[in-house]
Amino acid sequence: MKPNLYHVLGAKQFSRTELDELFAAARRMEDVVRAGGNRSHEGRIMTTLFFEASTRTRLSFESAMSRLGGSVIGTENAAQFSSAIKGETLEDTIRIVSGYSDVIVMRHTDIGAAKRAAAVADVPVLNAGDGAGEHPTQALLDAYTIEKEAGRIDGVRIAMVGDLAYGRTVHSLSYILANYRDVMIYYISPENVRIPSSVKRYMDEKGIRYEETTDLDAVAGSIDVLYQTRIQKERFPSPEEYDKAAGQYIVDEKLMSLMSKNSIVLHPLPRAGEISEAVDGDPRAAYFRQAQNGLYIRMALVDKALSGVKG
Amino acid sequence: MKPNLYHVLGAKQFSRTELDELFAAARRMEDVVRAGGNRSHEGRIMTTLFFEASTRTRLSFESAMSRLGGSVIGTENAAQFSSAIKGETLEDTIRIVSGYSDVIVMRHTDIGAAKRAAAVADVPVLNAGDGAGEHPTQALLDAYTIEKEAGRIDGVRIAMVGDLAYGRTVHSLSYILANYRDVMIYYISPENVRIPSSVKRYMDEKGIRYEETTDLDAVAGSIDVLYQTRIQKERFPSPEEYDKAAGQYIVDEKLMSLMSKNSIVLHPLPRAGEISEAVDGDPRAAYFRQAQNGLYIRMALVDKALSGVKG
Amino acid sequence: MKPNLYHVLGAKQFSRTELDELFAAARRMEDVVRAGGNRSHEGRIMTTLFFEASTRTRLSFESAMSRLGGSVIGTENAAQFSSAIKGETLEDTIRIVSGYSDVIVMRHTDIGAAKRAAAVADVPVLNAGDGAGEHPTQALLDAYTIEKEAGRIDGVRIAMVGDLAYGRTVHSLSYILANYRDVMIYYISPENVRIPSSVKRYMDEKGIRYEETTDLDAVAGSIDVLYQTRIQKERFPSPEEYDKAAGQYIVDEKLMSLMSKNSIVLHPLPRAGEISEAVDGDPRAAYFRQAQNGLYIRMALVDKALSGVKG
Repeated sequence: MKPNLYHVLGAKQFSRTELDELFAAARRMEDVVRAGGNRSHEGRIMTTLFFEASTRTRLSFESAMSRLGGSVIGTENAAQFSSAIKGETLEDTIRIVSGYSDVIVMRHTDIGAAKRAAAVADVPVLNAGDGAGEHPTQALLDAYTIEKEAGRIDGVRIAMVGDLAYGRTVHSLSYILANYRDVMIYYISPENVRIPSSVKRYMDEKGIRYEETTDLDAVAGSIDVLYQTRIQKERFPSPEEYDKAAGQYIVDEKLMSLMSKNSIVLHPLPRAGEISEAVDGDPRAAYFRQAQNGLYIRMALVDKALSGVKG
Repeated sequence: MKPNLYHVLGAKQFSRTELDELFAAARRMEDVVRAGGNRSHEGRIMTTLFFEASTRTRLSFESAMSRLGGSVIGTENAAQFSSAIKGETLEDTIRIVSGYSDVIVMRHTDIGAAKRAAAVADVPVLNAGDGAGEHPTQALLDAYTIEKEAGRIDGVRIAMVGDLAYGRTVHSLSYILANYRDVMIYYISPENVRIPSSVKRYMDEKGIRYEETTDLDAVAGSIDVLYQTRIQKERFPSPEEYDKAAGQYIVDEKLMSLMSKNSIVLHPLPRAGEISEAVDGDPRAAYFRQAQNGLYIRMALVDKALSGVKG
Repeated sequence: MKPNLYHVLGAKQFSRTELDELFAAARRMEDVVRAGGNRSHEGRIMTTLFFEASTRTRLSFESAMSRLGGSVIGTENAAQFSSAIKGETLEDTIRIVSGYSDVIVMRHTDIGAAKRAAAVADVPVLNAGDGAGEHPTQALLDAYTIEKEAGRIDGVRIAMVGDLAYGRTVHSLSYILANYRDVMIYYISPENVRIPSSVKRYMDEKGIRYEETTDLDAVAGSIDVLYQTRIQKERFPSPEEYDKAAGQYIVDEKLMSLMSKNSIVLHPLPRAGEISEAVDGDPRAAYFRQAQNGLYIRMALVDKALSGVKG
């Protein structure tokens, strides 16, 4: 890996100091956007390499680059990446694309793809999700939203709800939260998609308190943050079991009535029924503000990567 | 719908005054393009969301934004819009993309999609076609072309030819023309794809004269504008009936010989045989100039949307 | 074809003087990139029309335009080019897209497509590959790399290896090399994919020496440049015959040990096994530097096309 490049590869790479600095930078980016963007990276080029479609994440990065005055080239269609079809390795692709741009944003289907890319790249690599692996920029915007909405992350009580086995955002967010004091996490999921032991081990090492349960209603009243996620039908042995499991965890007006008036509801989006639209008007429904925060966090990361500061 | 946003959703929203202003703005945009573009919207971002491919229309909008100094982010591939695949509603998508850009250009397969988008968007929405619904920017560039080529729209005699039942451009153009005085429309189509009664009712209300006929040759000599469109094979019970119907309405040198020397031929393009290439060199063949006018109209619309003027 | 437009359509169009000028311009572009790009074509628009995917080539052109301050609009997905699906001719598409941009970069599946586009375009057309036809910008960057790495092209001894029947890059490169003095080409391929007689005829006319052989090892020691290409499985009657043929021509450490210490290895990339990764660290492995040179050559071509100089 080339020295002096600021790659964003996984959530575990961030220290508390780095998070504090990043969130301060993101707050400054909110001002930049309100002022209509700036031209601080005019002439610089971002390549977005999406080997797997993720329109929202891609547009968010491309908007971040545009707001900073830079240009974007890229490919939105992984499956048809022509060289990949011809058998080219990821490493070869990255070696070449490195020469065309100043920063690479990559989404890939394989765990560890971002690290492999960074190992051969001449420019910073920002991991926009690598398979069932990591999605660090999502976790960063999640944590930024908690700090902004709840006023602090130290001491926060958060319930992560849904498919905790395969949902990589809850893993990455857990790693970020491990940098804070007195955090309490409730991992709430159906039995067959519980939080992996590797995540629990990491939290144990970092001294983070957590509890596993299947009962959302029981903890709803005592949390500051409800982090809802999708449950995918294909994880369940039958549609009936899926319906039963998913039905338990729908955020609706009834659930909101159990939650404290200063709590917030987050979701990495897209949602597909697990948060009722009836909740959208509730001031505690923070998920659209959360999506917007993705822009500020990504602007801060792109700015740091292009400024050549090694993290 | 947020106040003070200039959405372009359907052709009926335009008054005569607005059309006059828009066409004047489009004429100024012709000068801007001749001068190599300007930087009046540098730093602003357009998102093009094409849930259905329409390369020409997308490139036309993206060129318009680029000519005004702005940036474009987007997705050309509707069918693979990743969040839509995961079950996200259009409204959720728009809520989020709103935060990434200053104007949204959307093409969708569903009638009314543009209105639904505008209802939740924080930025202007420009409808680039919504299913069998509307395609207002096409109708605007059609009318602009008539004014430019024929010198006026008041008093114009126009034949709309082809599939008038499913061809949304002829509906939208009819609504635009309803703002002008002494217009005469000939709706010329095979029996099975006649102009819908909803369009005729609207023209009646507005006091616009029209006639329905199947015989193009009979009116060719007395019109100022021939607006040709495609006839789609799948609308007909058999290939033989399609061939018979479509064959009647081909614009070729013989038909051109029936038309007056000051008349013009328009077509929203792409064409697929319904205008002979032998006609391309005829000065009355205005369809490529018409396509070019799409750039100026879209520049005028984008400029108005980004200038925050409510229409 | 409109006069005073600088199209790049095929490798045969270039004279020695033009090549010398182009390579000098490319060297200046290396300085431009080192300085972070310039804004010399701010406000100009490139349209990339890729009717066939070629991510690397497209990104290379888009990066070139961005480095010169221009904007890019385009379509990466040939197969779904909406107007083409509706039966539009290439000529109609080009007539319209001409009006949206200042230069068109086109990749197409059909031989001769670039010439057909240039015949009707109002702006310069740069051929980014037309089917089994030509890929002139690849050949230009190949020749530029030889001049840069070997110090000269006159007098160079080059082996072109692999599928010489269907590999268009070796055809285009042969045409470029025909402009130089004392070049010696070894065409090395399996019997069933030998260099076409049309190419040999052209080299004969130009007085270029060449030899055909199946034996790479025998010439490895006496060449300055080894130009490796892919061999496609589907050209062979059986997988066994493919394996036998392809296996003969793998560039590995053993082959490198036969080559002189000042020689270089090139490859248009992507590779798929025909150059061993063990060779990547060898200073003679010039294929990634070659890919990077594509940026400089394309910047020089785009700059020339936009500067309105007729070649």
